[in-house]
Amino acid sequence: MEQGRTDLALEENERIQTESAKLKGVRAEEEYLDQDDIRITTVYIDTENAAKKMGKPKGVYVTLESSAMSMPEEGESRCVSEQLAKVLKQLLPKGGEELSVLVAGLGNRMVTPDALGPQAVEQLCITRHMLKEFGPYAYENEKTPQVSSIVPGVMGQTGMESLEIIKGVAEQIHPDVLIVIDALAARSTRRLGRTIQVTDTGINPGSGVGNHRNKITEETMGMPVIAIGIPTVVEAVTIVNDSMSGFLSALEASESMKKLSDSWRHLKETEQKQLIRELLSPQLNNMFVTPKDIDASIKQMSFTIAEGLNIAFYN
Amino acid sequence: MEQGRTDLALEENERIQTESAKLKGVRAEEEYLDQDDIRITTVYIDTENAAKKMGKPKGVYVTLESSAMSMPEEGESRCVSEQLAKVLKQLLPKGGEELSVLVAGLGNRMVTPDALGPQAVEQLCITRHMLKEFGPYAYENEKTPQVSSIVPGVMGQTGMESLEIIKGVAEQIHPDVLIVIDALAARSTRRLGRTIQVTDTGINPGSGVGNHRNKITEETMGMPVIAIGIPTVVEAVTIVNDSMSGFLSALEASESMKKLSDSWRHLKETEQKQLIRELLSPQLNNMFVTPKDIDASIKQMSFTIAEGLNIAFYN
Amino acid sequence: MEQGRTDLALEENERIQTESAKLKGVRAEEEYLDQDDIRITTVYIDTENAAKKMGKPKGVYVTLESSAMSMPEEGESRCVSEQLAKVLKQLLPKGGEELSVLVAGLGNRMVTPDALGPQAVEQLCITRHMLKEFGPYAYENEKTPQVSSIVPGVMGQTGMESLEIIKGVAEQIHPDVLIVIDALAARSTRRLGRTIQVTDTGINPGSGVGNHRNKITEETMGMPVIAIGIPTVVEAVTIVNDSMSGFLSALEASESMKKLSDSWRHLKETEQKQLIRELLSPQLNNMFVTPKDIDASIKQMSFTIAEGLNIAFYN
Amino acid sequence: MEQGRTDLALEENERIQTESAKLKGVRAEEEYLDQDDIRITTVYIDTENAAKKMGKPKGVYVTLESSAMSMPEEGESRCVSEQLAKVLKQLLPKGGEELSVLVAGLGNRMVTPDALGPQAVEQLCITRHMLKEFGPYAYENEKTPQVSSIVPGVMGQTGMESLEIIKGVAEQIHPDVLIVIDALAARSTRRLGRTIQVTDTGINPGSGVGNHRNKITEETMGMPVIAIGIPTVVEAVTIVNDSMSGFLSALEASESMKKLSDSWRHLKETEQKQLIRELLSPQLNNMFVTPKDIDASIKQMSFTIAEGLNIAFYN
Repeated sequence: MEQGRTDLALEENERIQTESAKLKGVRAEEEYLDQDDIRITTVYIDTENAAKKMGKPKGVYVTLESSAMSMPEEGESRCVSEQLAKVLKQLLPKGGEELSVLVAGLGNRMVTPDALGPQAVEQLCITRHMLKEFGPYAYENEKTPQVSSIVPGVMGQTGMESLEIIKGVAEQIHPDVLIVIDALAARSTRRLGRTIQVTDTGINPGSGVGNHRNKITEETMGMPVIAIGIPTVVEAVTIVNDSMSGFLSALEASESMKKLSDSWRHLKETEQKQLIRELLSPQLNNMFVTPKDIDASIKQMSFTIAEGLNIAFYN
Repeated sequence: MEQGRTDLALEENERIQTESAKLKGVRAEEEYLDQDDIRITTVYIDTENAAKKMGKPKGVYVTLESSAMSMPEEGESRCVSEQLAKVLKQLLPKGGEELSVLVAGLGNRMVTPDALGPQAVEQLCITRHMLKEFGPYAYENEKTPQVSSIVPGVMGQTGMESLEIIKGVAEQIHPDVLIVIDALAARSTRRLGRTIQVTDTGINPGSGVGNHRNKITEETMGMPVIAIGIPTVVEAVTIVNDSMSGFLSALEASESMKKLSDSWRHLKETEQKQLIRELLSPQLNNMFVTPKDIDASIKQMSFTIAEGLNIAFYN
Repeated sequence: MEQGRTDLALEENERIQTESAKLKGVRAEEEYLDQDDIRITTVYIDTENAAKKMGKPKGVYVTLESSAMSMPEEGESRCVSEQLAKVLKQLLPKGGEELSVLVAGLGNRMVTPDALGPQAVEQLCITRHMLKEFGPYAYENEKTPQVSSIVPGVMGQTGMESLEIIKGVAEQIHPDVLIVIDALAARSTRRLGRTIQVTDTGINPGSGVGNHRNKITEETMGMPVIAIGIPTVVEAVTIVNDSMSGFLSALEASESMKKLSDSWRHLKETEQKQLIRELLSPQLNNMFVTPKDIDASIKQMSFTIAEGLNIAFYN
Repeated sequence: MEQGRTDLALEENERIQTESAKLKGVRAEEEYLDQDDIRITTVYIDTENAAKKMGKPKGVYVTLESSAMSMPEEGESRCVSEQLAKVLKQLLPKGGEELSVLVAGLGNRMVTPDALGPQAVEQLCITRHMLKEFGPYAYENEKTPQVSSIVPGVMGQTGMESLEIIKGVAEQIHPDVLIVIDALAARSTRRLGRTIQVTDTGINPGSGVGNHRNKITEETMGMPVIAIGIPTVVEAVTIVNDSMSGFLSALEASESMKKLSDSWRHLKETEQKQLIRELLSPQLNNMFVTPKDIDASIKQMSFTIAEGLNIAFYN
């Protein structure tokens, strides 16, 4: 069965980890913080050859996983943001100079599960205009980076690709690094609101809830691009696909349904695929599945990302 | 197969119309406005006996259907709101006296597909406070009704049932009629944003995107209750259920799959049901499916409802 | 000169403290927390006689003052909310039973300086629905109070007085105590965003940015009412009045203007008043003065109030 | 007395019209639409010499004035937007080719009186992405212009000047013309919500509620810039200044105060100015005065501007 679209590296990671055992140029690390119940998985794709085999660009893919991420007790959120800050600090460019960072909150602030990026950006401490006006002594900490931010909106609102807007802004202010925050589509409802993915490979077409059509990467932007994403929806077709898979597995497992399963198996693979495609309503293509309490989890998760960035920048 | 939850009378109407041919106490009318491409279906359940047989309370169920409802060209929206106003005028209490109306916008304004009611209410002309302060001559039209409104929010925000809030408010201001506006869950993605349902039977448990648990009806409120609803989501379980149905129908239709279909049919019904239940992930229970451009259609549809109410009240 | 409208007890307190020295039935206490730069002033009006003389109802008036309140460094906000929580705990009803609290966020969420109450309420932990559904064991802490909340909106939106809505809701759910949060009008721009006022006397007519016309007090509600307010605007007439006062004082102070001042003094008081009244444009009556960065301070202050309430309820 | 800051050309126009009678290179026209009670004033500054004398750049300044602008009856708004569209059509570049327009909504969407630009832009029909994807036949009208939009936010949110963001975006998409929408500061409360000002000279420093510090003009942008503004606030210092002026005029008018007035006049002008400056509280500098119902008027006025633009673009 054709695989549903996924933006979530962890899901890929599962494949990756299995495959990477055999693959030169790929390394995977896993850390489990018992006290905070946070799992951090890091996958390095080191060579072009490995990248080709993995079907993903060369780079670092970090996943923070925590069962309580979207609805934590007070204090737990702080643990996650501190780990996120640690990860970000490793990916941010180093240097003696004051760092200049542009943070872009992708997505549609008017559609709740797509509002992660805009809401996170709203909670950032912004410093660029103060440093421009008052110089390096605007803040007590002389190493305070120049942080600026942009919420590019979505094409239906602006008539422009997010890339066009971010690139235009970046060419005016020349940041050292671009950080993009986006809500992602996961392959499974189990992932929703439970993982933060950070990568230095940027954002690729078809990523995110809102389907950006242009790459936002070091290649297209001319500067390092760090992407932070949290899955907030599953595409409707994925849900149905998964259920069909479950159905067919169940057929195989059940004794009394053995015969049914057998006759399914006797179908040619093309017949199987066509059957499934036919019953997927075309209306499902622009539909997504999201939890009823998505407002509360977007609020929590955007806060965690903003807190992680603020710690990484200013502590 | 167990039917998915539906709040949409039109879907019921399809059954109803078929059944009502044979049923005493049920009348159905249909009107098609060719010029505006609007179909208006009215079902009257007149007797307690018919109500029992239909599984729905006695009352009037009107459905306005228009393919272009959620994204109309300029002007088309006005046609729909004028028809809605006409329907509302027939359901509103008559009398020589100035009418007092309380309009409640149900749902969660922070979750886009559930924000229909709150957004519609924001666009209403509110008059009660002016009439209270300046008397019947506050407006040129001396028959201007006393319109007030409330957005009760959802339980996670208030800790209260919508019923508790609306009832409390109504007991203070004693309106002649309550109008509730709510986003509904449809059985099919084809319905989304294409029908407005108006009924004088109020809102029943499990209705709406947000799952109100208490009836808001003439019985619980002590005054007539008119409900206006538009389907904005489909529950995730419904989507999967439908796909499974399609799958099984396809099995029956296809010659080469005849055998598979046969073996399915030879399963006992309980075995069939269990199989399906097993493969529906429990996480799906609090998930809904909604279109990616839901922000634009909520904006349009809430405007149409508000315009319909404003015309009904003030023209 | 007639005094501008003020909702701010601290301004009254200045009078009060001076007067209370001589007044039976009034006690004033002041505490200064050096480390956190927070000043807490408590005035008790103990007797009806004193109340009459003070022109304010019997009760407790607490004012927390901190220069950095609306724009604190991280951590400072917590100090203020902890002090607020301490004050609230003293005013909340005591008893062995689980407490039931209704919190009302007054004001217009669409007008930034009036959005304090609605924004604070949005950040509260709401528990009533969980305790209703799962009983006293819904939370680890068995003494978790039943917290519910309501944002009544403003008359132009609802057609109703805030009192009508809150009273209606309260009569449905019978809380032990009502807490109202409201943005206040101060007499001086120096106060804006720098003081939190807490009182057990409720809200009185003409209070707040939005001019509620009905008392929300123990007398009208039938239960204790705690009011929390922060000044976010100054009425335009107050600003002008103050400037005029300053002008006239300046006249008296300056030697070279002695003559001008003298001729002013030779006017009858009624002539003085009329002169000032004439030059106050009637348009100013519904205008208020507010800082340009009011969005940031409302965000910060609503967070502080919500944090204070959450600590008072759950710690 | 030093004049308060004003962005409103009409106020300047009053001076202009008086002066222009005598001034070469300045023409003024006035049109009064009796039926709709709309006054349209057009001032042309044609020569550099006149521009120098007027203290304003060469260009066209159009002002639409209507007493009912911010709170019109249904239908009246349409009259204003149609006149606005007519004015815009005259200022938009002509040519056989499909026009490409970028519309920028300046201001802070989180501060009600500054949200005019962002709210207007939200109600625009955006076409650029459709024309890019489907070519000139995307719309029935083959002359449909390419409309795109940007809400740059304010410096405290982005760390960037509006100019930097708009310029960056414009350099990516190369529009033929930039239209900027901004809330203005008026010199008098009487102007608030009653005039729309359109000019082809762009936006100049210190304009608007939010104090943009960089010019957004044809010179800085490299393309024609049309600015649309509506006054929504008066600066607090202006209010006080005006009241002082009124006070002093009153002194002169009143017989019994003759003496006072005389002694004021005998002060040197520098003494007068210093006196006034002293009594203007420095806190007033970042304060503005705005009506209590500003949310309703921003909603109405942003709709009128968006409607005017939509008519100008697509009719």
